Amino acid sequence: MNANKLNRAVAKLTGILLTLGMLSTTAAAQRDPLPSWNEGSAKRSIIEFVNRVTQPGSPDFVAPERRIATFDNDGTLWSEQPVYFQLFFAIDRVKALAPKNPAWNTQQPFKAVLENDMQALAASGEKGLLELIMATHAGMTTTEFEQTVKDWLAVARHPHFKRPYTDLVFQPMIEVLDYLRANGFKTFIVSGGGIEFMRPWTERVYGIPPEQVVGSSIKTKFEMRNGHPVLVRLPEINFIDDKAGKPVGINQHIGRRPIAAFGNSDGDLQMLQWTAAGKGKGEPYLLIVHHTDAEREWAYDRKSKIGHLDKALDEALNHGWNVVDMKQDWKVIYPFQLK
Amino acid sequence: MNANKLNRAVAKLTGILLTLGMLSTTAAAQRDPLPSWNEGSAKRSIIEFVNRVTQPGSPDFVAPERRIATFDNDGTLWSEQPVYFQLFFAIDRVKALAPKNPAWNTQQPFKAVLENDMQALAASGEKGLLELIMATHAGMTTTEFEQTVKDWLAVARHPHFKRPYTDLVFQPMIEVLDYLRANGFKTFIVSGGGIEFMRPWTERVYGIPPEQVVGSSIKTKFEMRNGHPVLVRLPEINFIDDKAGKPVGINQHIGRRPIAAFGNSDGDLQMLQWTAAGKGKGEPYLLIVHHTDAEREWAYDRKSKIGHLDKALDEALNHGWNVVDMKQDWKVIYPFQLK
Repeated sequence: MNANKLNRAVAKLTGILLTLGMLSTTAAAQRDPLPSWNEGSAKRSIIEFVNRVTQPGSPDFVAPERRIATFDNDGTLWSEQPVYFQLFFAIDRVKALAPKNPAWNTQQPFKAVLENDMQALAASGEKGLLELIMATHAGMTTTEFEQTVKDWLAVARHPHFKRPYTDLVFQPMIEVLDYLRANGFKTFIVSGGGIEFMRPWTERVYGIPPEQVVGSSIKTKFEMRNGHPVLVRLPEINFIDDKAGKPVGINQHIGRRPIAAFGNSDGDLQMLQWTAAGKGKGEPYLLIVHHTDAEREWAYDRKSKIGHLDKALDEALNHGWNVVDMKQDWKVIYPFQLK
Repeated sequence: MNANKLNRAVAKLTGILLTLGMLSTTAAAQRDPLPSWNEGSAKRSIIEFVNRVTQPGSPDFVAPERRIATFDNDGTLWSEQPVYFQLFFAIDRVKALAPKNPAWNTQQPFKAVLENDMQALAASGEKGLLELIMATHAGMTTTEFEQTVKDWLAVARHPHFKRPYTDLVFQPMIEVLDYLRANGFKTFIVSGGGIEFMRPWTERVYGIPPEQVVGSSIKTKFEMRNGHPVLVRLPEINFIDDKAGKPVGINQHIGRRPIAAFGNSDGDLQMLQWTAAGKGKGEPYLLIVHHTDAEREWAYDRKSKIGHLDKALDEALNHGWNVVDMKQDWKVIYPFQLK
């Protein structure tokens, strides 16, 4: 044996280690974990937090099993304008189901949807919206609904961007998800949106598996149909995972308090408060995505119906929570804008 | 450089790999993963299943993210006689809270509990049991309840074994949990028991973190108390995770179908049916723990009130599901019996 052989052996084993990701820590430390973020306090705060809770020996070190991070979805991980994307799904489903429901031609809120009369739809209020949801989200098995969501996502296009809705996710936030997971975090969605509307695509798009999605839901019922078990979706609210419901949903699904929470509206306020009140080592991490970019996305906050951000912004300013200024802090908004 | 140096370098890198667990596959294959199981069809079936779904290239290979295994708790992971251990908790809580509730001295089912009159308690039926649960499980914050459970477990002793209840977990099943996790599975509890009664100890005892516990629950409410957010436990049923509720709970919490399910009673029948009906690669794995050991544990099935096993046993026999004969298949029952 000679030096060449030794070198080859070491190189081979180093190659194995690299392939297996065992040497990636060093590589990761040298690489920018958040390349789509401009340098600034928001980016710095995330990196400082991760370093603080993951460095063994640090007074703020948090054991991996307690590294729970929760993310709102609409407006935090993907866009939510001009309306929540799930409403576009409901609208498209009403149109698809209309031939089998002739009464809808004269019956609100369905008539409004079929006539593309958004003003009349808005006038039907919360009651109208609920009717729309129940007519389009209930009455089928969970397996059938999952397929309907997948089929819709494959063909539906956002009215402004003319792209699949799942293209309109925030590249900088995807980097945060990846970065946290690379540092031992479990990432969860905690959204007011429908849990079964999100699960068919969150693993592919965000790397978040179905069991780490918390959301609003309708009731389901177990039934045997011709000897085959099914879960039927019922037209009855089970849980609303919004506002004061978010800490309830977190407790119900996760069973421990997050040490980091990310939101963008008053619907996330209680989740942020619940996370902020966590005792244990170190300060929890709180971040609000502030939509300030009218050119590349949308600009809205205190007066917006969708993504209303008022009290939560005040609390953020009062308590020194981190606020992302989308226009200033993000190099790109969507993955398709990456060069 | 010479052969010695080469050998030392290779040995050092091999040492690193071993330390990091990268070479453990070989070691694990040589070690018996289920040492507390006697050789037989039950033990063989588990090992064959794991090999079948984890070997790359096998026609039954299942991607790691789909390796979901669900376990009932009472009677499947720990004992459940003479009554569910959570009832002992409720009884002890009634006794602890009695001085502050003088009316209980004359009021059923509390009077029965305070007089240790198990016959009168049984006579109070489901309604009485529910009253007992609400009086002892509601009215405090989630944090307070968690502490109460931990404090109780530290001092409470099983009436027969005179040991902490968490000593009465099944060593052979703990080996199954470890074995599945070592092969990329996520292990979940899906129990009729209270979700918040289990979470304080399942990670320590079973290696199952709170977010992988599904169970029955009461409602909770988010409140600000002196500027501090709390979740208050309300005396109102939220969800019963038993029988036809188990597939509902699995869908709600996990959002995908298990490929393996473990139970011991008719309360687990629908979970087993739901798992058995899974399409995809390979046959799902179903197992029923049959309590046949009157000497070391308890022997009961078709006529037992607790752990009633009748229809599920018929289904197991009809469909060729795996059945553990505790007396025959298990070398030891509890960890404290290990030599």
